[in-house]
Amino acid sequence: MQIERNAFIACDCDYSEANTVIFGAPFDSTTSYRPGTRFGSRAIRGESYGIETYSPYQDKDLLDCKIFDAGDPELPMGSSDMALEQIEDIAAEILADGKRPFMLGGEHLVTLGAVRAVHKKYNDLYIIQFDAHADLRDDYLGVKNSHACVMRRCHELVGDGHIYQFGIRSGEREEFRFAAEHTKMHKLTLDGIEKAAEELRGKNVYVTVDMDVLDPSEFPGTGTPEAGGARFGELLNALLSLKELNIVGMDMNELSPPYDPSGISTALSCKLLREMLLMLEA
Amino acid sequence: MQIERNAFIACDCDYSEANTVIFGAPFDSTTSYRPGTRFGSRAIRGESYGIETYSPYQDKDLLDCKIFDAGDPELPMGSSDMALEQIEDIAAEILADGKRPFMLGGEHLVTLGAVRAVHKKYNDLYIIQFDAHADLRDDYLGVKNSHACVMRRCHELVGDGHIYQFGIRSGEREEFRFAAEHTKMHKLTLDGIEKAAEELRGKNVYVTVDMDVLDPSEFPGTGTPEAGGARFGELLNALLSLKELNIVGMDMNELSPPYDPSGISTALSCKLLREMLLMLEA
Amino acid sequence: MQIERNAFIACDCDYSEANTVIFGAPFDSTTSYRPGTRFGSRAIRGESYGIETYSPYQDKDLLDCKIFDAGDPELPMGSSDMALEQIEDIAAEILADGKRPFMLGGEHLVTLGAVRAVHKKYNDLYIIQFDAHADLRDDYLGVKNSHACVMRRCHELVGDGHIYQFGIRSGEREEFRFAAEHTKMHKLTLDGIEKAAEELRGKNVYVTVDMDVLDPSEFPGTGTPEAGGARFGELLNALLSLKELNIVGMDMNELSPPYDPSGISTALSCKLLREMLLMLEA
Amino acid sequence: MQIERNAFIACDCDYSEANTVIFGAPFDSTTSYRPGTRFGSRAIRGESYGIETYSPYQDKDLLDCKIFDAGDPELPMGSSDMALEQIEDIAAEILADGKRPFMLGGEHLVTLGAVRAVHKKYNDLYIIQFDAHADLRDDYLGVKNSHACVMRRCHELVGDGHIYQFGIRSGEREEFRFAAEHTKMHKLTLDGIEKAAEELRGKNVYVTVDMDVLDPSEFPGTGTPEAGGARFGELLNALLSLKELNIVGMDMNELSPPYDPSGISTALSCKLLREMLLMLEA
Amino acid sequence: MQIERNAFIACDCDYSEANTVIFGAPFDSTTSYRPGTRFGSRAIRGESYGIETYSPYQDKDLLDCKIFDAGDPELPMGSSDMALEQIEDIAAEILADGKRPFMLGGEHLVTLGAVRAVHKKYNDLYIIQFDAHADLRDDYLGVKNSHACVMRRCHELVGDGHIYQFGIRSGEREEFRFAAEHTKMHKLTLDGIEKAAEELRGKNVYVTVDMDVLDPSEFPGTGTPEAGGARFGELLNALLSLKELNIVGMDMNELSPPYDPSGISTALSCKLLREMLLMLEA
Amino acid sequence: MQIERNAFIACDCDYSEANTVIFGAPFDSTTSYRPGTRFGSRAIRGESYGIETYSPYQDKDLLDCKIFDAGDPELPMGSSDMALEQIEDIAAEILADGKRPFMLGGEHLVTLGAVRAVHKKYNDLYIIQFDAHADLRDDYLGVKNSHACVMRRCHELVGDGHIYQFGIRSGEREEFRFAAEHTKMHKLTLDGIEKAAEELRGKNVYVTVDMDVLDPSEFPGTGTPEAGGARFGELLNALLSLKELNIVGMDMNELSPPYDPSGISTALSCKLLREMLLMLEA
Repeated sequence: MQIERNAFIACDCDYSEANTVIFGAPFDSTTSYRPGTRFGSRAIRGESYGIETYSPYQDKDLLDCKIFDAGDPELPMGSSDMALEQIEDIAAEILADGKRPFMLGGEHLVTLGAVRAVHKKYNDLYIIQFDAHADLRDDYLGVKNSHACVMRRCHELVGDGHIYQFGIRSGEREEFRFAAEHTKMHKLTLDGIEKAAEELRGKNVYVTVDMDVLDPSEFPGTGTPEAGGARFGELLNALLSLKELNIVGMDMNELSPPYDPSGISTALSCKLLREMLLMLEA
Repeated sequence: MQIERNAFIACDCDYSEANTVIFGAPFDSTTSYRPGTRFGSRAIRGESYGIETYSPYQDKDLLDCKIFDAGDPELPMGSSDMALEQIEDIAAEILADGKRPFMLGGEHLVTLGAVRAVHKKYNDLYIIQFDAHADLRDDYLGVKNSHACVMRRCHELVGDGHIYQFGIRSGEREEFRFAAEHTKMHKLTLDGIEKAAEELRGKNVYVTVDMDVLDPSEFPGTGTPEAGGARFGELLNALLSLKELNIVGMDMNELSPPYDPSGISTALSCKLLREMLLMLEA
Repeated sequence: MQIERNAFIACDCDYSEANTVIFGAPFDSTTSYRPGTRFGSRAIRGESYGIETYSPYQDKDLLDCKIFDAGDPELPMGSSDMALEQIEDIAAEILADGKRPFMLGGEHLVTLGAVRAVHKKYNDLYIIQFDAHADLRDDYLGVKNSHACVMRRCHELVGDGHIYQFGIRSGEREEFRFAAEHTKMHKLTLDGIEKAAEELRGKNVYVTVDMDVLDPSEFPGTGTPEAGGARFGELLNALLSLKELNIVGMDMNELSPPYDPSGISTALSCKLLREMLLMLEA
Repeated sequence: MQIERNAFIACDCDYSEANTVIFGAPFDSTTSYRPGTRFGSRAIRGESYGIETYSPYQDKDLLDCKIFDAGDPELPMGSSDMALEQIEDIAAEILADGKRPFMLGGEHLVTLGAVRAVHKKYNDLYIIQFDAHADLRDDYLGVKNSHACVMRRCHELVGDGHIYQFGIRSGEREEFRFAAEHTKMHKLTLDGIEKAAEELRGKNVYVTVDMDVLDPSEFPGTGTPEAGGARFGELLNALLSLKELNIVGMDMNELSPPYDPSGISTALSCKLLREMLLMLEA
Repeated sequence: MQIERNAFIACDCDYSEANTVIFGAPFDSTTSYRPGTRFGSRAIRGESYGIETYSPYQDKDLLDCKIFDAGDPELPMGSSDMALEQIEDIAAEILADGKRPFMLGGEHLVTLGAVRAVHKKYNDLYIIQFDAHADLRDDYLGVKNSHACVMRRCHELVGDGHIYQFGIRSGEREEFRFAAEHTKMHKLTLDGIEKAAEELRGKNVYVTVDMDVLDPSEFPGTGTPEAGGARFGELLNALLSLKELNIVGMDMNELSPPYDPSGISTALSCKLLREMLLMLEA
Repeated sequence: MQIERNAFIACDCDYSEANTVIFGAPFDSTTSYRPGTRFGSRAIRGESYGIETYSPYQDKDLLDCKIFDAGDPELPMGSSDMALEQIEDIAAEILADGKRPFMLGGEHLVTLGAVRAVHKKYNDLYIIQFDAHADLRDDYLGVKNSHACVMRRCHELVGDGHIYQFGIRSGEREEFRFAAEHTKMHKLTLDGIEKAAEELRGKNVYVTVDMDVLDPSEFPGTGTPEAGGARFGELLNALLSLKELNIVGMDMNELSPPYDPSGISTALSCKLLREMLLMLEA
């Protein structure tokens, strides 16, 4: 009798051989509107058996890659500090073993845990963010470690000009003012990604994909859907344009299965994750 | 202890100070296919706390506007005549107080109540209609005051050439024949809106937005979804192109929350309503 | 090539041979809360192929019965008067042909149309009503022909003491006062049905079953679910206790498929309809 | 133009005249399984217009009561400590004004905030808990202020023998051991409530109703449904048996609308809340 | 009393007069992922009353056509061989009567039954396939007659170069290799359809439309949604470009109503079916 | 980095130490009505983390048991014969290793595969079936290996008087006739289970639980819900009454997650599975 693994399709090599290590961050305690992203990583794994391992976009196959999916840790709902520490520890262990962490959220706050670990290893770190929301508030109802503040916290780590933002179409007026001074924000669309890819050639780059950057028609299953987003093809092309970069960590977050009754958001997540993994692996 | 208002986000100034007054028309008794728009206005208010008050599209903020949301009257299901009278009375009171009515449906028939009031004040009235359906039948199964006839009834008030129709992609053959003679119909797309905006400069204009003009992928939550519709960005641009017009009344209708399981239609409605309100207010 | 009928399972004998004739009344214009019963009769027919024709409760089989299902007329939403007239005409035609009408709602108002026809033929008519709601208001927001008033309108036809009400657990205080004087109301439960059956032996009886008499756990798919209702077994037994009566017409209403996501309400309706038909047919 | 209130049906007297004050606690950050109770209080208000104000169970009418619904505060997701403080402040203000607080959750942790306030005023406090879960863990994944620990935290305030638990049918072995020594736990059913009511005559009693005490068939809309629960009628009778007690505060929690697709849990909550309010008010 | 037919809107002429005959193939036993297409044909008929018979795209009306809808046969779940035989028999009878079969799936495997019948009559047969998936596996888990193999089985009938594939964006690497040698595959988009239409002028052509060729945002209701698909307008134009061809049979499949909670996929299917029928009929 | 198992909660001992071995049978190709049970076993595992390991009913804890969950094999949809062989092989291997197989369906047909293996080892085998449906047809639309025939096939193996049926309330007249002669059928309720348990003391017994034996109010998530079923407490007690028997194999089937929108059926399945496992293990 064999043991059944709970892994993303074809991501079941030995840990020691893996180049990229997937782990989940099933946490959404600070979500201010519609919760449910805690179920995101589990849904992606479960539905991954509905897609193929082969990509006709890149003519590559996951069967040829060395990826290990470590599953989900049990994170303490109600304590963001403890959850972020656990996430940081997992990412740090993967990095210490010379591998690249790929985190599946969860709400966007979890990015802070992974970025802390990556930033400790790579001090001069750049972040590329795909997102509908600026996430640049200083606090949200008094809470500093909130999904709505995650890029502000990251900015405190990586500094001015080190965060590239794409697809942003929602935020307080103050967030847009902050961005004008401190980040490289591209509003409404993904335009400018090729130029950014050129600028970041040779740098250490962390890529965070808040899936609500997509149009709600293609990705309804998220807590705060924002009309007027990017198409799947646009996001795929934007991500593939990063393939020459030195990506030292990556995440994909904000899939909320309870708001995805038809399952198309989860299916899209599986497909895009396959493409991202194939892009990272030679 | 404060009283909690039930208003669209940031639309809570004193009535006396308001330029625009929102009110609901929760009525759908004549809906011939899938009912539920009676819950539209309530859903929009409830979900409005998931969006921001600031618009990066127009760089304006609802916090700077003077808008009052009067809530929903209790309309008698089963009696279109009584419901239309109540709607007309509310709109007339707002107009009498020198303010602009903004009605949230409900089914499209409710537009007739508001247009009657507006037409009494502004005799030479023009109507811009965004819609998937012509709504130009003379009757529907013998019923004259039906959602399927609402623009025909409006035509009886405002006359030939005073109704501009955009996005129309469904109707009986007879409706398209009628339109060819009596209205300015733009089929399938929103093309022609800039030219219409020019023609209507200086006129009194009522704008009615049947949300099913949008593509069902972006707006599934409506009674009669019609494939091949406009994108959010197209509709937003079309509406913003009207900003120089003298808009004396406006409505947004046909959101049916029971058919919006993921909530994206309601979220889009909130966002578009914010943009429309910001467009109306300087 | 045969023509596929759209009929309740096994109810497809020739009209001329039928003892009982089923017809739908897909109307819900006066529903004041959650609409959707217009889809009830269609759902019952469609799902009837998931049940068996044989009843282990009565040891009878629909295959041995003579029942004709006439389908649904197209009723004009928005005009209760016209809809009630159409319903009355259909029931009258069935009665004139010496057959028993069995109507599938729709909202409860449709009972008025059928009762009018039955009452014209059988002047001394008694009504047995299973329902969570008294439906005894004189008007609802000014509307006389409303679902909330249907038994009050029936009372105007059949008079004091001719309406037996069972399972009633919701209403205005005034409705309960009215019932105390004018109807035979059994509150909260179905207790008393056997005694009623005895009293009504030999009378002409119309039976109307508002399915919300059932507990919402067993029948969630209805517009106004009222906790504390009857169990399926209780309602089945209550109905079977009527089998010696002279039932001259019957209806089953208020199934609202949009509020039945698991389908159990529709499945129960099919099963109960089978039992009712088997009870009526020798 | 009138301002529309957002209140539970008929709970709109002036604050100063009210005996009972309703307020919401829309918080669910520590929910470890399926979130969504943050939307509970809002759903109850919105759906309350589908029920009657009159109760045939108690022959009383909300129209005769003096109840004020203060609406929902905006609680900070991600910080249980701040949320509990806000809740305690609201309850304390109501108590200071000589009124009885009635809180609508939200997850069960919110009870701790209200109990803190009530306990400050009434030192010798007894708690009656209706619940499927013991909620007696000392911590949950290291978190002390968790929904799974709320009665343990309350026990630290009110002491041994002051908590009566009914309907408990889930917990760790350790929780049942703790209960055997420190609380009065009635497992599986509500049996023993009359005896408890006698014992508590003349005491200051806080009543907390975790709606998952009900059977999931009647109340599916909750985060952790536990088969084998109480029926609506049983819970109603249990609550009515408390009517002679000196109830100094009360709450109702754990309705999770996202898991209530048919709406029966919300409708039942409205009905039960009406009965509880009528029970409290003479 | 008339018999109510269960037919697609306006497709109710006498069989003897019909040019095109619709029939359903409610079968999905080999679906490897999310089942439910067995309900597709029934849903399309039921919802067809929500669309108009007139097309503003083609300025034609179904009321002017001669189409007969024969309904659904009862196919044996669990036996693909028996089901395919039944389907072949139905198609053969229609062809023998000199009419064009139009089949409504069901899963894509059902195409094999129809193609077998058409191929017997027209030996030199060409197939145009719109699909997200190549469906070119030789077997699936050892099963030869599987939805995933249907075009491979068709290829065995019609031979090299006789299958034109459009919109393909998913498959095993091996399927794409097979296509490179044996079929005319157009990957990712519908580009090339006009050229194909030219090549096929005068040939006998069977057209099979797997609706998952559409983008999941417009067509969520299918078993295996694949992001990056065609828009409704693109597919409509592609189909209309075939209007000069000699189309000897056609099908539309893979609508899965259980995954279409908003109903937009079913509504789109109805509309597209109307357009296809109008395109086939002069 | 540890490997995450995909197992029912606390069923993760080493295979070699296990007394009971769980495995899934994700197959539903012959389901004639509403499919989806293929997702049953996966859903039960995934949701098992929402229940406790401790049972207050039996005062036992899964943490004290030796159970191994082997996960799901990949079964070929469309070929019942191949699927049944695979299932038989798995069960045979478990039996050969001296362990008890516990299978999670899938549709009820899968029971045939397990019973074949068990019957090969234990020739004088008795079966206890809990079910709403007799499942005694000789064939269904010509198919012999159908869910509707599974107990008829089992009867061919174990012979007259060896099958005890409880809760049966649906079937063709012919099935009930067959049962009267060949099986021990208890109609409608679970009455008689204690007496059966006595009769079967010392025999080899296989227990199959079709979850639709439960009332649809408690268990909506199944393909063919039949009103009038057993309560959770009744089924639990019936199962616990078997604890002295020599149970050599067991299964639980027919959970269909797509028809369980609130999740209560899956949650109940998890709880009942815990109780069954605790009952089997000392």
